[in-house]
Amino acid sequence: MVPCLASRWPARLLRASPPCWLAARVRGTPRERSPRPRSPHEAGRGCCSASGAPEVTLTPQRYAVQRLPFSAVSEQDLAAFERIVPGRVVTDPDELQAFNVDWLRMVRGSSKVLLRPRTTEEVSRILRHCHERNLAVNPQGGNTGMVGGSVPVFDEVILSTALMNQIISFHGVSGILVCQAGCVLEELSQYVEARDFIMPLDLGAKGSCHIGGNVATNAGGLRFLRYGSLRGTVLGLEVVLVDGTVLDCLTTLRKDNTGYDLKQLFIGSEGTLGVITTVSILCPPKPKAVNVAFLGCPGFAEVLQTLSTCRGMLGEILSAFEFMDAQCMKLVGQHLGLASPVRDSPFYVLVETAGSGAGHDAEKLGHFLEHVLGSGLVTDGTMATDQRKAQTLWALRERITEALSCDGYVYKYDLSLPVERLYDIVIDVRARLGPNAKNVVGYGHLGDGNLHLNVTAEAFSASLLSSLEPYVYAWTAEQRGSVSAEHGLGFKKKDVLGYSKPPAAVQLMRQLKALLDPKGILNPYKVLPTQA
Amino acid sequence: MVPCLASRWPARLLRASPPCWLAARVRGTPRERSPRPRSPHEAGRGCCSASGAPEVTLTPQRYAVQRLPFSAVSEQDLAAFERIVPGRVVTDPDELQAFNVDWLRMVRGSSKVLLRPRTTEEVSRILRHCHERNLAVNPQGGNTGMVGGSVPVFDEVILSTALMNQIISFHGVSGILVCQAGCVLEELSQYVEARDFIMPLDLGAKGSCHIGGNVATNAGGLRFLRYGSLRGTVLGLEVVLVDGTVLDCLTTLRKDNTGYDLKQLFIGSEGTLGVITTVSILCPPKPKAVNVAFLGCPGFAEVLQTLSTCRGMLGEILSAFEFMDAQCMKLVGQHLGLASPVRDSPFYVLVETAGSGAGHDAEKLGHFLEHVLGSGLVTDGTMATDQRKAQTLWALRERITEALSCDGYVYKYDLSLPVERLYDIVIDVRARLGPNAKNVVGYGHLGDGNLHLNVTAEAFSASLLSSLEPYVYAWTAEQRGSVSAEHGLGFKKKDVLGYSKPPAAVQLMRQLKALLDPKGILNPYKVLPTQA
Repeated sequence: MVPCLASRWPARLLRASPPCWLAARVRGTPRERSPRPRSPHEAGRGCCSASGAPEVTLTPQRYAVQRLPFSAVSEQDLAAFERIVPGRVVTDPDELQAFNVDWLRMVRGSSKVLLRPRTTEEVSRILRHCHERNLAVNPQGGNTGMVGGSVPVFDEVILSTALMNQIISFHGVSGILVCQAGCVLEELSQYVEARDFIMPLDLGAKGSCHIGGNVATNAGGLRFLRYGSLRGTVLGLEVVLVDGTVLDCLTTLRKDNTGYDLKQLFIGSEGTLGVITTVSILCPPKPKAVNVAFLGCPGFAEVLQTLSTCRGMLGEILSAFEFMDAQCMKLVGQHLGLASPVRDSPFYVLVETAGSGAGHDAEKLGHFLEHVLGSGLVTDGTMATDQRKAQTLWALRERITEALSCDGYVYKYDLSLPVERLYDIVIDVRARLGPNAKNVVGYGHLGDGNLHLNVTAEAFSASLLSSLEPYVYAWTAEQRGSVSAEHGLGFKKKDVLGYSKPPAAVQLMRQLKALLDPKGILNPYKVLPTQA
Repeated sequence: MVPCLASRWPARLLRASPPCWLAARVRGTPRERSPRPRSPHEAGRGCCSASGAPEVTLTPQRYAVQRLPFSAVSEQDLAAFERIVPGRVVTDPDELQAFNVDWLRMVRGSSKVLLRPRTTEEVSRILRHCHERNLAVNPQGGNTGMVGGSVPVFDEVILSTALMNQIISFHGVSGILVCQAGCVLEELSQYVEARDFIMPLDLGAKGSCHIGGNVATNAGGLRFLRYGSLRGTVLGLEVVLVDGTVLDCLTTLRKDNTGYDLKQLFIGSEGTLGVITTVSILCPPKPKAVNVAFLGCPGFAEVLQTLSTCRGMLGEILSAFEFMDAQCMKLVGQHLGLASPVRDSPFYVLVETAGSGAGHDAEKLGHFLEHVLGSGLVTDGTMATDQRKAQTLWALRERITEALSCDGYVYKYDLSLPVERLYDIVIDVRARLGPNAKNVVGYGHLGDGNLHLNVTAEAFSASLLSSLEPYVYAWTAEQRGSVSAEHGLGFKKKDVLGYSKPPAAVQLMRQLKALLDPKGILNPYKVLPTQA
């Protein structure tokens, strides 16, 4: 089998995986740089929610959470904000609605003001004012988070990075990009791809998410396997501390061992320790050849062996290894009308290669496919013969979230587990829930040991939830796994932190929070567990 | 030109680059796991110091530094230590001497006791005792640091990791290694190479340095270009905090976004915030083919173009791009008798590839060499045809430090600079010093923007030093470079931190130090600038 090759880097416009009622928006063209941010809802309804999305319950009504004694925004505060960001203070309740609700429509706050700074200096003045006045602040990027970290819980001031969307510099030899925190990931991708580089990360939400939010949540995504964590690719950050101090760690150097690497404090801290205003990031060269193969496997053992074989035979050109189970394929067929390109199988694998020599890559991939087909690890497979087909294959994997949202209420888990135990929890939960669940599915970034376990049911049910939690977390902890591989803790996972971190670590987290934000005004009710 | 290939991974036994009087030791077999650590001096004298090394001046005599009001070790303390680590308390002055002096023989402390714990629990008990008693502690790994960070300044208790040398686990599919902090890097390399993986870092000092010290100093080295920083490859750490609390962040997961990534605080903090006791690290698969080319370039502009060409044509198989100038070649010839394998040139470049397909790699490298030779970017070149030749080519680059030490007193600078300005400072300093310097040389990890600028003179001279400093640091700061790319700050560079970090960053460093080590007993007089 000699595969045909898509020699250009696929644009993957279909990569988004929003809930179905948001599909049109997130799958569409990149969000415009309008001074008035678009609502997550205004772009129309999708496949399975023709009757419109229901009103989201206010967070404090659904969850047991008490407002902390922060000040309330006064007329004087609004006047002060107007002086700092003239014409960019939003108080209209209708306009605010979209920024109070998360994109999964599971949490809702009641902020009465949103601020849209354009510069670091403006962010600094805003934070200085809020700090002095003891006003809580909710930093917000593209509002595409999965754990309720990007919207207010009560009436926090929303500090949006939407207008901080300027590229500051790009170095055409080193590939180092410096830009403001509010740049949309997809726009950055297009910018650097035109200059023969790629962004080191890629996400389903790239059409909406901001690079500052990506860094603040230490986003993983589809290129992690090849280009690693943002902890290595982010070279520098400018951050505004809670009292307005501007911390300039914005170097553009690959190596810098002058003292503590302070920027690491802010990567993945979800806006609870400071507000990221500028990012310096290392972009890898654009691969000259990209190929995608979609394979059917007879069992999970064969999926794992295919991964090992892949690593050995594709080596440095392997750029993605994703898997999904038969239930996922059933759901993308049923709800989105996508057809499997290969014979029905218990498991499917998507392999992507990205390299500098089309001929060499094709030969390596050809040998790999011959081997896995010949040895029975794979029972059927197909290759992307052009960019459109590559996108179609990727869509099968990337639109699973969307299909799940169309299936009913979704219980979502994002786990890191040892690969050899990774699918056991899906089987286990399926048996445990029996007919109480509609579907229990497993998919994810297998090459990184990252499972997305999702359970659907007709509607939210407290008893189903109690069958799932803390069971899933305890199971994960027993394997020394992570209860949040890439989504973070935000509001919804903060109280399960203890399943992955020992008390001494939680204690040190609290000390760091107290050091950097003594009044606790930065993104309160998030990341740190509720105090007993 | 079709190059012959060394298809095995070269062991590179000649990679060490110690001062010449240490050469025999560091280039020899890996340090034995003897309960009595070997002195850096006892293995004999080298090429150019037949008369023996002179006594090293005590640090407080050479530098303006005042002892802080820590307690002095008492008989009761020694008795307590003996109870914690029975038979592993060293107080013999002769035996202590080797641990009081750094391997470059530029700083010397006067510690009266060295402790050799075997377990985390022992480290915890030692720190708890020292914390209660206000005794200063100097954590020490292989004592191969370049900035005086690994030896005491006064009478700090030396806490050696030498006996914490056990491998705890290795996962043959994922390549995740968990081991104690005192494991010698070269021994770990051999261990994982026997299992078809490699360590993600490689250093000249690998025969002596400890993995815990590598992590504590965020070591860069020769594989950084390909496998990136320890901030990405270190997956987990176990650290003992100053009061004896054991902080278990020892996960073996590629992805974990459960709260702040606390391990990052300790990577690169040089033992000033806690003592690393166990490391979990991701090892890449061993490449099936490794090739080395050594090239002569007519100018630095051509070196830079060769780098760009190399990145474009070799892409994902490029694993090292090192450069050295003609003066470096002259010195390795003069002092070590190494001959240039190519025609005399103003600059030399070493290119290494590491990939999964010998034939493909040879073809890529062949095309690259044809192109650079044909276009005049390179005037002469040679390829490693076997493992021995690969080692010989690497030795030209790696033994520069050794040759410099044989040339006289060495002023050493380890800078990160924008690559296009990287050699300008060498030319500039050469012109500035004129005949006052014996040699001004430039070499380093060009692919990472990391220059080693070294100046030799017959002997130490305060006036030469004042011509160099702060000039070199100010020049670097003007380019927004780093005054310590990979060596860290330790004792010798702590007061130049301000050239690369703004006051707000230094202030936050001090706050972190105060939070994690309120009495300041952990590796005092290091990393943080002297208070005015």
